[in-house]
Amino acid sequence: MRQTRAMTTFPFEIQARDGAARTGVLKTSRGDIRTPAFMPVGTAGTVKAMYMDQVEQAGADIILGNTYHLMLRPGAERVKRLGGLHKFSGWKGPMLTDSGGFQVWSLSQLRKMDKDGVTFRSHIDGSEHRLTPARSIEIQADLLGADISMQLDECTDFPCSHEEALRSLELSLDWGQKSLDAFGVRETQTLFGIIQGSNFEDLRERSAKGVVSQGFGGIALGGLAVGEGHEQMCRTIDMTVPHLPDEKPRYVMGVGKPIDLVESVARGIDMFDCVLPTRAGRHGQAWTWDGPINLKNAKFAEDLSPLDEAVNSPASNDYSKAYLHHLMKAGEYLGAMILSWHNTAFFQALMADMRAHIAAGTFEARRTELSLRWADTKSAPKPT
Amino acid sequence: MRQTRAMTTFPFEIQARDGAARTGVLKTSRGDIRTPAFMPVGTAGTVKAMYMDQVEQAGADIILGNTYHLMLRPGAERVKRLGGLHKFSGWKGPMLTDSGGFQVWSLSQLRKMDKDGVTFRSHIDGSEHRLTPARSIEIQADLLGADISMQLDECTDFPCSHEEALRSLELSLDWGQKSLDAFGVRETQTLFGIIQGSNFEDLRERSAKGVVSQGFGGIALGGLAVGEGHEQMCRTIDMTVPHLPDEKPRYVMGVGKPIDLVESVARGIDMFDCVLPTRAGRHGQAWTWDGPINLKNAKFAEDLSPLDEAVNSPASNDYSKAYLHHLMKAGEYLGAMILSWHNTAFFQALMADMRAHIAAGTFEARRTELSLRWADTKSAPKPT
Ligand SMILES: [Zn+2]
Ligand SMILES: [Zn+2]
Repeated sequence: MRQTRAMTTFPFEIQARDGAARTGVLKTSRGDIRTPAFMPVGTAGTVKAMYMDQVEQAGADIILGNTYHLMLRPGAERVKRLGGLHKFSGWKGPMLTDSGGFQVWSLSQLRKMDKDGVTFRSHIDGSEHRLTPARSIEIQADLLGADISMQLDECTDFPCSHEEALRSLELSLDWGQKSLDAFGVRETQTLFGIIQGSNFEDLRERSAKGVVSQGFGGIALGGLAVGEGHEQMCRTIDMTVPHLPDEKPRYVMGVGKPIDLVESVARGIDMFDCVLPTRAGRHGQAWTWDGPINLKNAKFAEDLSPLDEAVNSPASNDYSKAYLHHLMKAGEYLGAMILSWHNTAFFQALMADMRAHIAAGTFEARRTELSLRWADTKSAPKPT
Repeated sequence: MRQTRAMTTFPFEIQARDGAARTGVLKTSRGDIRTPAFMPVGTAGTVKAMYMDQVEQAGADIILGNTYHLMLRPGAERVKRLGGLHKFSGWKGPMLTDSGGFQVWSLSQLRKMDKDGVTFRSHIDGSEHRLTPARSIEIQADLLGADISMQLDECTDFPCSHEEALRSLELSLDWGQKSLDAFGVRETQTLFGIIQGSNFEDLRERSAKGVVSQGFGGIALGGLAVGEGHEQMCRTIDMTVPHLPDEKPRYVMGVGKPIDLVESVARGIDMFDCVLPTRAGRHGQAWTWDGPINLKNAKFAEDLSPLDEAVNSPASNDYSKAYLHHLMKAGEYLGAMILSWHNTAFFQALMADMRAHIAAGTFEARRTELSLRWADTKSAPKPT
């Protein structure tokens, strides 16, 4: 294996622990990220139906951008000419971009994998594109200007055979090395590696040890939130975390529901992203300290109470459920706007609550309380 | 004719004039309305894709609500139980509601007119409803709680024969009297009458004299912005205004484009409403001091300039045309949100500009300048 040059890693100060959970600060040149951190997803240069100042005021320190969407529209070279993704979108804080691999796997048409990368057709206009580890780094770090880039990895179907999972994780390890080589040494940007291995303990260990040895600035767990269900997600995190270095940030990609966040934080995870707050909001669902509710339900038609007085956001406090019920039934933009905003604020409030409980040494009791309260929201495994 | 009791009229202080144009303040118990005033349309309890504080900060003193939409969904009695339309929607300033007649004419199914009112089926669910002059007043003034209600009138097709226009305006005069009787005397609410008569000078005069003699709190010109084109709209205003009392506010319903607003103000009109700012915004059109542009046009794909630096709004200043082009092409909520907000701010800026020029005695020069600048935006008559 080629000698890996030492890459820039952002200072990560773990300030308190409670069991396996930890809270701290990941320091970037664009600002501090308080961990555990939830990253709102700004798919195509916008966190859907929200103004960026609402995202910031909700408490988000970092957002995620999708390489797949942005490379297709408006195009990565165009974003670069327009000054990069921060200037383009108006988000001033740190930004993480994914590699594009997950959406190629889930959205694109006619994709063809080979050992060097993937060729696919756009789901928008059918045009042909190619992603390789080096091209993904070029898009993320050079053209979009991400503070944190992700290595290109291969996503496998779920469920997946041991043989297939092994083949795939070896390919992802190779792509990880190619990503590191392409990334090189940068002053103010870093690169995270991704562990795969499906639900197989030996493969998660093998992948974790490989990724860790490659020397990334942070470690992500991929292949979760793909239909394995809450319990299997927890088991996979449990079988992976023991192989991770304490001092690097750990990121579970695409997760998740509040119960998933609580149980992942309890297992030592530091970072998350998910479209749930905004996607659920567009469909009329509000997540609250009392669990999720759907505002389209007729029982809210004359309910004058706000979404959640315990969440410190105008979206959570200033609009009645009756008004939101009406807006959703009438298909008004404002319903999706307020619910996306509220959910984003609630998810940030949950992260702040967990950070405070870890710092106070009361996290385990809080975890028990929240996990019991939200037990009926645990995802079941996808039927096979 | 029955004796009309004197109704409450809001104090209307005309503070300056320039030619036929006038500027002043219409004083309501919920706040002052600076005239000439443009009312954003809050169709179903929301100005589409906007937060109410954006509408207020854009400079709007009053918004309009649609009786037809609200009576069908969520229902006028329900709005009443929820505390009225102000509390329901979160708009704290004055609110005007239309009578429902225009949307029954333009949106509903299977409508049947009779001399006492109109029976129709909802465009949403086919349910049957009835509007009479008294029921419209009950919905507007008692249930929604409008500060300014409008009489129920009959809308005619455009174009329309002299015979049909005469029959219709006589019916509207009768309904105006019934509306006044139902409205009675109220402390903090008023009622406007509506002049009809299509494009016929003798009928506009007849209608105007009838409506004026009935003693409303303000006078509206109906039957405009229905396809007659800019020049005919101006002619109709010219044939009507001489029959109106100086001391009452004059409202042209459903108008319009910036050029229509300028030319109507020049003819002595005080109030307007139109869905144009928000509807155009949802379709990618921005109105600016330099005229309208469509952000979907490819020429904006790499244009880093903001929509209009001369409009004092974050929507107008803080987002590049390139970003808005991308948002519209990608079908993102934020595109419609920013453009609706910008257009609303621009229309309010235009009204403020006209008020200032009237007050300074420089309106005629400003009118000439703007009318020349926007000459190519004049609507042509609808082909017959
Ligand atoms: Zn997710
Ligand atoms: Zn209009």
